[in-house]
Amino acid sequence: MEFNRKASLSHTVASNITDLIIGGQYQQGDKIPNEMELIKRLEVSRSTVREAIKTLVSQNILEIRRGSGTFVCDKPGIAEDPLGFRFISDKIGLALDLLEIRLVLEPHIAEKAAERAGDEEIRGIAAQCDVVEELILSGGSYEEEDVLFHTKIAQAAKNAVIPNLIPVINSTIFLLMRVTNTALRKETILTHRAIAEAIQARDGDGARNAMIEHILYNQRFVEKLKSDRETASCGTSVPVNNE
Amino acid sequence: MEFNRKASLSHTVASNITDLIIGGQYQQGDKIPNEMELIKRLEVSRSTVREAIKTLVSQNILEIRRGSGTFVCDKPGIAEDPLGFRFISDKIGLALDLLEIRLVLEPHIAEKAAERAGDEEIRGIAAQCDVVEELILSGGSYEEEDVLFHTKIAQAAKNAVIPNLIPVINSTIFLLMRVTNTALRKETILTHRAIAEAIQARDGDGARNAMIEHILYNQRFVEKLKSDRETASCGTSVPVNNE
Repeated sequence: MEFNRKASLSHTVASNITDLIIGGQYQQGDKIPNEMELIKRLEVSRSTVREAIKTLVSQNILEIRRGSGTFVCDKPGIAEDPLGFRFISDKIGLALDLLEIRLVLEPHIAEKAAERAGDEEIRGIAAQCDVVEELILSGGSYEEEDVLFHTKIAQAAKNAVIPNLIPVINSTIFLLMRVTNTALRKETILTHRAIAEAIQARDGDGARNAMIEHILYNQRFVEKLKSDRETASCGTSVPVNNE
Repeated sequence: MEFNRKASLSHTVASNITDLIIGGQYQQGDKIPNEMELIKRLEVSRSTVREAIKTLVSQNILEIRRGSGTFVCDKPGIAEDPLGFRFISDKIGLALDLLEIRLVLEPHIAEKAAERAGDEEIRGIAAQCDVVEELILSGGSYEEEDVLFHTKIAQAAKNAVIPNLIPVINSTIFLLMRVTNTALRKETILTHRAIAEAIQARDGDGARNAMIEHILYNQRFVEKLKSDRETASCGTSVPVNNE
């Protein structure tokens, strides 16, 4: 079950393509040359090129769009579950641990966003707040847009790492609990609005405090969920639909 | 350049093996059955099994140890650079952004470690503090053991996510600056000791403050580095050897 010479050559080709992306020759979302061009340019066989592309796809650096070609991913190098959360078996415990991290990180992020955001970013955060609110009011599923709201705030905080980290943490929490709870939905509208308005007013303390309130509410929600489970001890499935 | 049917079958086999690991049938560090056994058990071809194993290796779920077999990784599913830091081109900016996150997260972690650590963990943190100190005093390279010191504190904070996150952040900072600066080494000995002693004394505030001091010093070090670079504007290489 050892890798052969072709495998290590394809590894080199994959590294070369990665270096071109790091060097900026191909940017996020760019189409890379097709198979024939790569064979010619890199002077390797078709099977080596295919192997290299496959490796880069499995590492979330490239994506194949059927019928249109191979492209650099929007967030190159970030796997679907980069921190291996699926290997943590206690899912409610995982949600609480993620919320503990959010409670430490996100109030700081909100404060920095209030201080550092550009006008365009502030408009983007306000608009995203509207999108989430409309989805909640119409009874729709708002999880993805909610993560985007928090990601836009992270981007406005002008730290290159945080926008990569926040979606990883927040999407996982949503994966762990499909939230149809009415009280939680109402609270989300109120505290999201408070966060967006404080950022808009350049009020760092206000943004920090509104974010703390928002996350504390979520935390209490999951803690209640946990104690209900322990009382009922009725199995291990996690999704919540307690409207 | 489309995936063929074999590729999607190998994807299913890879998912099946991943599920066995998530379900606990194979644990971290365990040897998985050899190729022949997998072919028999899963009723697929040798090439499908090989393809599946290759995918899982590229996702850091399995590792092949030559001559002894295929094993579940110690941190399954966590890539070498899970958050795509190599695609961020401003390396000093990246170090500062990572230190900003550390300054938010790690004081909290140190405080929680002081509150939650078991006696065995406290002994482990103290011992690891000694290991780093001896390496620094002997002039050796201590980066890896330093990351382990912070990881042990993260483990003692009893949050399942943080021990996955801290090495990602801290290793990257060390990768960005090979630190041979004498003042920084001395300061590391002092503040590491203060952190370890506060945790040992179950002094949450003390641990928090010592960690803040430790990270602020690192932050100022990198900020000085940045301004020196900007003054000299002498190129883009990052390693530091200014003893």
